[in-house]
Amino acid sequence: MKHLLSIEDLDANQLDELLVTAESFAEVQTRDVKKVPALRGRTVVMAFFEDSTRTRTSFDLAARRLSADVINFSSGSSAVKKGESLRDTVETISAMGVDAIVVRHASSGVPRQLVEWTDASVINAGDGWHQHPTQALLDCYTIRQHKGSLEGLRIAMCGDVNHSRVARSNVDAFTKLGAEVVVVAPPTLLPPRMADWPVKLESDLDSILPDLDIVYSLRIQNERISQALFPSVREFRARYGLTKQRMDRLRPDAMVMHPGPMNRGVEIDPEVADDPRSHVLNQVAAGVPVRMAVLFAVLGPGRFNEEGVRA
Amino acid sequence: MKHLLSIEDLDANQLDELLVTAESFAEVQTRDVKKVPALRGRTVVMAFFEDSTRTRTSFDLAARRLSADVINFSSGSSAVKKGESLRDTVETISAMGVDAIVVRHASSGVPRQLVEWTDASVINAGDGWHQHPTQALLDCYTIRQHKGSLEGLRIAMCGDVNHSRVARSNVDAFTKLGAEVVVVAPPTLLPPRMADWPVKLESDLDSILPDLDIVYSLRIQNERISQALFPSVREFRARYGLTKQRMDRLRPDAMVMHPGPMNRGVEIDPEVADDPRSHVLNQVAAGVPVRMAVLFAVLGPGRFNEEGVRA
Amino acid sequence: MKHLLSIEDLDANQLDELLVTAESFAEVQTRDVKKVPALRGRTVVMAFFEDSTRTRTSFDLAARRLSADVINFSSGSSAVKKGESLRDTVETISAMGVDAIVVRHASSGVPRQLVEWTDASVINAGDGWHQHPTQALLDCYTIRQHKGSLEGLRIAMCGDVNHSRVARSNVDAFTKLGAEVVVVAPPTLLPPRMADWPVKLESDLDSILPDLDIVYSLRIQNERISQALFPSVREFRARYGLTKQRMDRLRPDAMVMHPGPMNRGVEIDPEVADDPRSHVLNQVAAGVPVRMAVLFAVLGPGRFNEEGVRA
Repeated sequence: MKHLLSIEDLDANQLDELLVTAESFAEVQTRDVKKVPALRGRTVVMAFFEDSTRTRTSFDLAARRLSADVINFSSGSSAVKKGESLRDTVETISAMGVDAIVVRHASSGVPRQLVEWTDASVINAGDGWHQHPTQALLDCYTIRQHKGSLEGLRIAMCGDVNHSRVARSNVDAFTKLGAEVVVVAPPTLLPPRMADWPVKLESDLDSILPDLDIVYSLRIQNERISQALFPSVREFRARYGLTKQRMDRLRPDAMVMHPGPMNRGVEIDPEVADDPRSHVLNQVAAGVPVRMAVLFAVLGPGRFNEEGVRA
Repeated sequence: MKHLLSIEDLDANQLDELLVTAESFAEVQTRDVKKVPALRGRTVVMAFFEDSTRTRTSFDLAARRLSADVINFSSGSSAVKKGESLRDTVETISAMGVDAIVVRHASSGVPRQLVEWTDASVINAGDGWHQHPTQALLDCYTIRQHKGSLEGLRIAMCGDVNHSRVARSNVDAFTKLGAEVVVVAPPTLLPPRMADWPVKLESDLDSILPDLDIVYSLRIQNERISQALFPSVREFRARYGLTKQRMDRLRPDAMVMHPGPMNRGVEIDPEVADDPRSHVLNQVAAGVPVRMAVLFAVLGPGRFNEEGVRA
Repeated sequence: MKHLLSIEDLDANQLDELLVTAESFAEVQTRDVKKVPALRGRTVVMAFFEDSTRTRTSFDLAARRLSADVINFSSGSSAVKKGESLRDTVETISAMGVDAIVVRHASSGVPRQLVEWTDASVINAGDGWHQHPTQALLDCYTIRQHKGSLEGLRIAMCGDVNHSRVARSNVDAFTKLGAEVVVVAPPTLLPPRMADWPVKLESDLDSILPDLDIVYSLRIQNERISQALFPSVREFRARYGLTKQRMDRLRPDAMVMHPGPMNRGVEIDPEVADDPRSHVLNQVAAGVPVRMAVLFAVLGPGRFNEEGVRA
């Protein structure tokens, strides 16, 4: 595996292999010294052209815990401001001899484009509405930790599906690993070619809640409200929000998930975010070992042995 | 010691212990290789919600010289911008498995609040007008370097006492270590409950100068001027500024201190800042070993032995 | 060599020595683990008071590949904003015990001024229109890689010579290493005291192209256009731009160089930037070993031996 661009490029076996590697790395996180020398002397560039806390920090920690050197490329203080093309920027970074570029960009398809411009491994940390593959992986990891397997699970993705790269990546990964996915969203927030998605569409969240293993709430971006894609926050919450009332209809062993950052009181109520069935912080915690596994898969030439070095 | 939130939480013995540890780390700074492996594999997050040069850089250097990994969390390029609550931000950082959070925030009490939200050690790098405990420690360290002990010293804190976390922390630390503190400030810049402070109030700086061991000048923030808390820079300087004339009244072995950044020509004149009795740069230099001692105290499970590793 | 401030301070032997050291470090870049422990425990501060991608990232990588600790000092989030003087800022950084300060500043002469204020080594990463010595070194390195030596080569510097620190550094380095430099620029973009420069002035680029070994295109800054220093982008390109037509007049073994970031379609056409004779990315690649050599020259007390440690 040279790059990680999209869940579409991976089959169930490859997903499984990454998740198993992540488990080994999670064990490293319980040690006193949380580092392994697996990627010593390798350089990872964080090229974030969009704001991010959790994803950037999580990749940064993952790379350092593999002993890689991390260079932060910030589009603010850079040649991008001087009008340099993305291609020239990427070729420049690449010419310095970096091993991997972790890229986030507001435009769909940028990571795949980068592959044409660099010899380094490219890891997609989120591109437009398209894909966020490490989010899908860490969500699968979190589910496996609590349910053992995704096989046969019934998962609802709720809210703004159309503008969500998380929805696209997760639907793909969840179904590949054997789950059944239901989508619940206002018609204005559904993607145009929904028929191509391997999902069932449901309009009434309340009626399906008792049958769900997992309810996955997607982030509503504030700018959608101003675009009048739904009438009001109040009405959105009434129909699609995860409220305390809805939690009462959910099974005791069901999982509530959200990719963060949460809009408490819009798509998810504070009591729900803090409910024992909420796995939001487990998702964050899964991010580090999962991203260690991805970095190791694209940069480590061999397998990770017990001492944490390449075998 | 799990956290460092406020000088209030420490007694004289604990202050002394931290200062003695800092002396061992200062010795490390004189070596060719200025690092010890004491905190290898530990992760320290710098969560600065307010601008800072010296404190952030000083903590950053301190952590690296203990071989810890340092993650910079910048509130600008982050979920904070997307409206995430401070609690969610902190819980997210914490879920990634960090060992310590060094926090600066414009609101008093934030570091103590963080303790409720994380298992990591919390170090207060300045909160509102409340506390700046590592500043107080490095100031005590600087004084001990030049005076041996604080016992019986007479120290004046001059200028904007009310809006100063440095004043609050330092008065506490100085008096705990046996110094006598005098406060000299315009009535509009005195804290409302001054009577509770273990200090003597003086209105005339000139009359007390010959008896002082240390004159500590506090930074005037420009915004105070626009708030009309004092008539003019000129008048402030005339009554409370450290001028060349005032230096002539100060003993030859007296110390001039300032937490920086200095407003040269306002609370301190350029000739005074550069006088041999000025210890401003010694204060900065003390910051690194003092912060190494604090990080080591909260994260290192044992004592620092001669090889710089945990015994 | 304690500092690197300007190519003026170096003679041909010293330039040669730095370039030979850079060759050893280039070899390190081909290894699996691209690091040597040469500067372990040393601290390098990146003090960039002007935006930069390639230079900052290149120095950052160079320092890490020598195992130094790197501290980024960003003027945005700093005491500079609070009105602290440059001197106080530098003295503060310096008091923390850093070993080298890599400085970029919009004002000519700032790096040389810094030497008065710090015991650390100062490396000029570009000051105003004055000097950019590591750019000159990496350009010499790139030329030697492809031509063996600069002796007797004919090099044209084209475009905005007056506002270019690259022009000033490179003319100096190229001529010291035996090349003959020709300057081709609009009269409004020539420096006032051109007569003092060891160069020949030419007005017609087309007529000299067939005799050139290297054509070096300088970046036009957008703000020059608004200052009406030349009539229009179209006219500038027509007379001084590197176009496909001009490439046809250039020898097959000639080199095209540009310091980046390029304004494609202004001083250099896209087809020229991507021509096999273009060495723009080789220049970028040369930056890392050249900057390793400079950091090592100012901080390493001995010579670099085969194991990459100080002998």
